[in-house]
Amino acid sequence: MEKLFAEFFGTFWLVFGGCGAAVFAAGVPEIGIGLAGVSLAFGLTVLTMAYAVGHISGGHFNPAVSFGLFAGGRFPAKDLLPYIVSQVLGASAAAGCLYLILNGAGAFSTEGAGAFATNFYEMEGYAGRSYSMAAAFLTEFLLTAFFLIIILGATDKWVNGKFAGIAIGLALTLTLIHLISIPITNTSVNPARSTSQALFVQGEALSQLWLFWTAPIAGAIIGGLLYKFLLQKSEE
Amino acid sequence: MEKLFAEFFGTFWLVFGGCGAAVFAAGVPEIGIGLAGVSLAFGLTVLTMAYAVGHISGGHFNPAVSFGLFAGGRFPAKDLLPYIVSQVLGASAAAGCLYLILNGAGAFSTEGAGAFATNFYEMEGYAGRSYSMAAAFLTEFLLTAFFLIIILGATDKWVNGKFAGIAIGLALTLTLIHLISIPITNTSVNPARSTSQALFVQGEALSQLWLFWTAPIAGAIIGGLLYKFLLQKSEE
Amino acid sequence: MEKLFAEFFGTFWLVFGGCGAAVFAAGVPEIGIGLAGVSLAFGLTVLTMAYAVGHISGGHFNPAVSFGLFAGGRFPAKDLLPYIVSQVLGASAAAGCLYLILNGAGAFSTEGAGAFATNFYEMEGYAGRSYSMAAAFLTEFLLTAFFLIIILGATDKWVNGKFAGIAIGLALTLTLIHLISIPITNTSVNPARSTSQALFVQGEALSQLWLFWTAPIAGAIIGGLLYKFLLQKSEE
Amino acid sequence: MEKLFAEFFGTFWLVFGGCGAAVFAAGVPEIGIGLAGVSLAFGLTVLTMAYAVGHISGGHFNPAVSFGLFAGGRFPAKDLLPYIVSQVLGASAAAGCLYLILNGAGAFSTEGAGAFATNFYEMEGYAGRSYSMAAAFLTEFLLTAFFLIIILGATDKWVNGKFAGIAIGLALTLTLIHLISIPITNTSVNPARSTSQALFVQGEALSQLWLFWTAPIAGAIIGGLLYKFLLQKSEE
Repeated sequence: MEKLFAEFFGTFWLVFGGCGAAVFAAGVPEIGIGLAGVSLAFGLTVLTMAYAVGHISGGHFNPAVSFGLFAGGRFPAKDLLPYIVSQVLGASAAAGCLYLILNGAGAFSTEGAGAFATNFYEMEGYAGRSYSMAAAFLTEFLLTAFFLIIILGATDKWVNGKFAGIAIGLALTLTLIHLISIPITNTSVNPARSTSQALFVQGEALSQLWLFWTAPIAGAIIGGLLYKFLLQKSEE
Repeated sequence: MEKLFAEFFGTFWLVFGGCGAAVFAAGVPEIGIGLAGVSLAFGLTVLTMAYAVGHISGGHFNPAVSFGLFAGGRFPAKDLLPYIVSQVLGASAAAGCLYLILNGAGAFSTEGAGAFATNFYEMEGYAGRSYSMAAAFLTEFLLTAFFLIIILGATDKWVNGKFAGIAIGLALTLTLIHLISIPITNTSVNPARSTSQALFVQGEALSQLWLFWTAPIAGAIIGGLLYKFLLQKSEE
Repeated sequence: MEKLFAEFFGTFWLVFGGCGAAVFAAGVPEIGIGLAGVSLAFGLTVLTMAYAVGHISGGHFNPAVSFGLFAGGRFPAKDLLPYIVSQVLGASAAAGCLYLILNGAGAFSTEGAGAFATNFYEMEGYAGRSYSMAAAFLTEFLLTAFFLIIILGATDKWVNGKFAGIAIGLALTLTLIHLISIPITNTSVNPARSTSQALFVQGEALSQLWLFWTAPIAGAIIGGLLYKFLLQKSEE
Repeated sequence: MEKLFAEFFGTFWLVFGGCGAAVFAAGVPEIGIGLAGVSLAFGLTVLTMAYAVGHISGGHFNPAVSFGLFAGGRFPAKDLLPYIVSQVLGASAAAGCLYLILNGAGAFSTEGAGAFATNFYEMEGYAGRSYSMAAAFLTEFLLTAFFLIIILGATDKWVNGKFAGIAIGLALTLTLIHLISIPITNTSVNPARSTSQALFVQGEALSQLWLFWTAPIAGAIIGGLLYKFLLQKSEE
């Protein structure tokens, strides 16, 4: 049960911190934190919660990570569903808090690509570019695949006692992923995060949600298998 | 006595570095460090002073942290008052130095929301938004609650010998908190920091100061209790 | 064989992440990640892949690093060619993916200095400055020389068990190198990275490619020898 | 002798990287790294060279640090002069390289406050502010004093085997110091760095150089003594 609380709080913090930085602070004129600040915020949510509860639940905070660890042989199938339910609930509770606070300034809106930090494709988003569905899928797929390769490689070596180092590494992976891809899809690689924001924005955010479940999970599974069959062998 | 010196110097550095970055460097046109730079500066003050004197006093530098550690069963009630007095004195001395240096360029001002890095609510601050008192309270409450959950979780595991890792984690939590919430309240989560700046600005900064004592301390206590009763059990 | 897969994936990630951040996210108006974000992205690619596969191949991801480690007496001559082939193939595959995704928004272009994140000299690049061939050579030479001095110095001391620390240090060296020199040559210090982008842009990017092989490799060899003869002795 | 080479290379890298980031990359329109990027660059030069040669010379790269460690009882008086000479020579060689590269784009200039990354006071610098000599002195004094308190505190505890953590902490202190004070004096806290740039700019940069020797060294000595008498005792 503590594991599910840990995943709930962790995913809450990921959405509250990462999407919160996006909706409150990214676009302040002149001095806003911009996309680099949001990227850092997403990474830091994972870093800090990995410190707080990583030793309890393993610190997934992301259904794609749970699936990828399962594919890599590091997570039991029977825990997939309860973990994912906790993650989606935590993310949604965080989105609710963001909604309340934004509304306290009358600033909640569902207009435009990426409103309320939703993920999207085939909409004119950043810098006037509109990325195709295929480009969005490839991006989310590739990034989540590498995310899992890095997670599996990092946890391969430092199983004991080197937790701080791993946490930093994995968190910075998420920062890097956002540095690359916010302008493409607003960056998901995490279906729980995508779902929580889409629930409040509805409309196209909901109808495009399928891609932000399938691409990250497919990427995570392939990443898990790639690591297992191409790279991990060298350990033996 | 060394503990109180340590808290004094640490909180001095937190305010001199964090608020100093805000008043000197955030708003320089084109190349200013912006809110992301200020967020980083706040985190780095705690990181660097945790290195310097964390082993002496525990490195709170914040009355809400002292209260939350007390609620989580990690800090004795009898030390609360002397710690908090040292923290407020250190913060105020730093604000005095900031005042002297700013005055050396004729640039001290009490005009507008967030002047001299004060905290605020219900004032038109960043990006033309004015957050309600309730939104400000909820923000400060939630962020401080998670701050304490992370502190308690992190110090749970690495009590010995892993200090560098913890210091980095906790410092980055403070950076993250600022990345999210500077545009909402200018970010307090630390009553000593709020008090020191309000003393020099007076007016509304003083009349709104109650919120920046009550919300962070309430959040810290709830965070401490949440961790103790929902998460910590798994250790046993 | 796992070593060559590791170098392939690592260099793929370096180009996909570093050059990807440049072409997707650097120039978004107002909130783009800018050159600092790109610098961070390059560093993080190396950091994260060092975590993932550093224990398999040593984590070079760069022909100049392989040459410099050879010059410093840490890498066998017979592995130079297969490593470099893997690195160039991985980099080129990543450039292909970037090309596909960019094309999904109709945004691939070969116009202007640094198009598609190519390296260059004697072209009007950033801030209207055009650096001479000699200045470009000196920059790439010096930066790669120090890169190797730092790699050799860092790996000298913490051969066992301190991998996380080294990975962070080396990755941050690459971030620093980019912070300094993107406006000069778009920063190579890595012939594989330069080659992959030039293959897709052709024209001057190909005709200037020689400098981004010779300067980094010459710098790496000199850096390796400098460390070996001026600094390393103190260990004995 | 290796110690002096190490200080030479380390201070070369500090000036080449930190001042280089300032003169090449800070002011590129729209996407320049700004003052936050320069702050990060200064910190990373120290971090990376501490990895490379910190185990050889202790990694001072700064006459004020050498004086402060002497005041704190950690560095012998007889090594002060050779260390400082090496530091000033390394810094000056780096400034020469920066001069050559900048000249390769016809972009060297001695005009205006902070030209070629020189330190200054009582000149209209950033955001139209001109800080008085007293404000500049107080800033440099305070920041160097805390720099030394942090160095002494950090090295107190992790004398053995925790080098990576210390290096990160000290490097981030320098980043923080720059985040606060570039807009005040262009940040010295390091007389060697100030001297190297002033040698090439001459004029007021030379006539104001006295402050950037006296204030940092006075601050460093006071910081060293403060730590020794107010904080260190608790160890005993």
